[in-house]
Amino acid sequence: MNARGVSLSVFERVMEIASRRGFFWPSCSDVYSNYPAGLWSYGPLGARLIEKITSLWRRIAINHGAYELITPNMMSVKVFEASGHTKHFSDRFVECKKCHSRFRVEMLLAGHIDKASLENITDAEADRLIRELNVKCPRCGSRNFTEVARFNLMFTTQIGAKGGEIAVLRPETTQGSVVELKHVVRSMRSKLPVILYQQGSAFRNEISPRLGLVRLREFHMMELHIFFDPENPGFQKEVESISHYKLRFLKLEDRDSGKITEMEVGEALREGYTINTLITYWLAVVQKFFNETLGIPMERLRYKELSDRERAHYAAAHWDLECYTKDLGWIEVANNAYRTDYDIRGHMSLSGEDLTVDVDGKKIIPHMYEPSIGIDRTILNLLLISYTD
Amino acid sequence: MNARGVSLSVFERVMEIASRRGFFWPSCSDVYSNYPAGLWSYGPLGARLIEKITSLWRRIAINHGAYELITPNMMSVKVFEASGHTKHFSDRFVECKKCHSRFRVEMLLAGHIDKASLENITDAEADRLIRELNVKCPRCGSRNFTEVARFNLMFTTQIGAKGGEIAVLRPETTQGSVVELKHVVRSMRSKLPVILYQQGSAFRNEISPRLGLVRLREFHMMELHIFFDPENPGFQKEVESISHYKLRFLKLEDRDSGKITEMEVGEALREGYTINTLITYWLAVVQKFFNETLGIPMERLRYKELSDRERAHYAAAHWDLECYTKDLGWIEVANNAYRTDYDIRGHMSLSGEDLTVDVDGKKIIPHMYEPSIGIDRTILNLLLISYTD
Repeated sequence: MNARGVSLSVFERVMEIASRRGFFWPSCSDVYSNYPAGLWSYGPLGARLIEKITSLWRRIAINHGAYELITPNMMSVKVFEASGHTKHFSDRFVECKKCHSRFRVEMLLAGHIDKASLENITDAEADRLIRELNVKCPRCGSRNFTEVARFNLMFTTQIGAKGGEIAVLRPETTQGSVVELKHVVRSMRSKLPVILYQQGSAFRNEISPRLGLVRLREFHMMELHIFFDPENPGFQKEVESISHYKLRFLKLEDRDSGKITEMEVGEALREGYTINTLITYWLAVVQKFFNETLGIPMERLRYKELSDRERAHYAAAHWDLECYTKDLGWIEVANNAYRTDYDIRGHMSLSGEDLTVDVDGKKIIPHMYEPSIGIDRTILNLLLISYTD
Repeated sequence: MNARGVSLSVFERVMEIASRRGFFWPSCSDVYSNYPAGLWSYGPLGARLIEKITSLWRRIAINHGAYELITPNMMSVKVFEASGHTKHFSDRFVECKKCHSRFRVEMLLAGHIDKASLENITDAEADRLIRELNVKCPRCGSRNFTEVARFNLMFTTQIGAKGGEIAVLRPETTQGSVVELKHVVRSMRSKLPVILYQQGSAFRNEISPRLGLVRLREFHMMELHIFFDPENPGFQKEVESISHYKLRFLKLEDRDSGKITEMEVGEALREGYTINTLITYWLAVVQKFFNETLGIPMERLRYKELSDRERAHYAAAHWDLECYTKDLGWIEVANNAYRTDYDIRGHMSLSGEDLTVDVDGKKIIPHMYEPSIGIDRTILNLLLISYTD
């Protein structure tokens, strides 16, 4: 119960305590009343949590031979043209014709159809659903929306004294690793597989930032970019050493029932479900990190398999590691994408440069597997799970 | 000598080695040939240096009772209107009428009059000098420039689904501390003086990024924001414990001769040159950090006193800690500004909120002293000093 005797959910209580005790709170909330949503500040206790979580994960990365990189938050728009982000990195929205508020289509339809189906419908189907279900504007109650449109999520700015060049605030740290891979391979004289580690901010102009640390406009992430030769991905010995470790999957075909399939690492690999030794091994490392290092109970973790349509534009396979809490349900805390050679190929094509890596005298375009952990969501889930009355 | 037998300066050799061995290099330099200048990537060795330097300084801060804060890189433009940055945070430039290149006035006149005088001249005097000295365009050789104009150094972007709100990429971490001070004081139940520690990126749309890590468009800094009651600044006992420690000043009146005045902490305080116990103590802590912790020889360090005109718009007193290397001369590595109550007063005035802090039942507007360390420049200077053939 809060001071006015209203009963609060665990989520509301945790958010209130987090702000009061100096973990995190909406940026500027003491000063500017109509400050943009989705920008948060971390206080002394929150900063300690970030420091602790990142140093634990960094140690795991470094112990696996990862090289740390720090690349700029701001990069030329060229980089994101090559990566496909200027074309594909968008949300769909409709605007209320009466109050002119804009809403993400997924948010508007969330109460009406289940989330899994939602992520699979086309823009035209979304249009039809909004009309058929007679959806109300959450702000003014009107039932008159524009057609579904696309909104690019990247923030842009102008760079240089003449303001002529467009720069982008990175929506992921990935492209920094891709454009510097060759430099690292050369200076470190390293051979594939090469693991790059990045930790830092990322920026997305979300249409409706909400749920505290879940959907932010600026957030903190730590990403591994593991470049490998698809003919010889590596991590054979490592994966054998944990062949009986159980991975927890929500397979595509079990979306409706929610049935979780526990699969031993060795079995997942034999069946080809997890593609190769490298991907299988790193799925285990990430699950172990959340379970054994951070202490999230196994029954609250699962890898959700994404469908062709749900996956990002660059991914050939994609599992979202999700964490369960009563108030939020299953929330993605880490995405694990097999990006193939999509990114490097894009930069080679736009720049005309040779970004291949030499493997025993053969030039190959490395493939990339990317475990990407959202730090803010991880912290929120940890607090929600740790809370007791 | 380089591969072509050309003799290189230490600066050029260090930059070449830093890139080759994976310390740092211009972002994207393997991929996009005309990538914007002033954006750099740090490789594995550079990232280790950043980690090492920041953890050493953070430990000193925490041992002094500092609270760590993490505030967004992107903030509403309102914050920077209140802080005076939208009005005052600019460089002056002229444009070549022939090739349309733009140049910082200070850069154009650098070969003609000394730097100290340069920083003190008005826009009109700069205009007159450029004409009288018949300055050539460094790009095309023409001698025909526009009048001196001002160029705001902040990057802006549009935030929100309708793109209506302007957000700014912070040019310093300071404003984040100012707008969250009250929240920290309340949640930590702390009393003045309160020390906030922030570490992160900052962004400035420099007209002419140059000299490797010296003038960047995105850079790394670690700042302390020490809020205090000007009637009772504190650090009395601390300052007494180091009363014989010698600070090294280049006073305003000694600019021409370059004479450095060594002054014991106790003496600096008695003479009132360093204003109060808090500022005096922290000038010593910062100098000790560069000398004793990072190992920069004392004769390569000095505090340059800034004149009324050189100081930033918010500062009542300001000393630049400078580091000497043969190739670069004296380069600022940390600025130490007494910002009075300028920032908090600005936010109170724009927001109408009460941002005072309670001191024994009295409401006061805290004053702020800010030691701000540039991490990139510190690393560059350390490498230049450590280099031997």
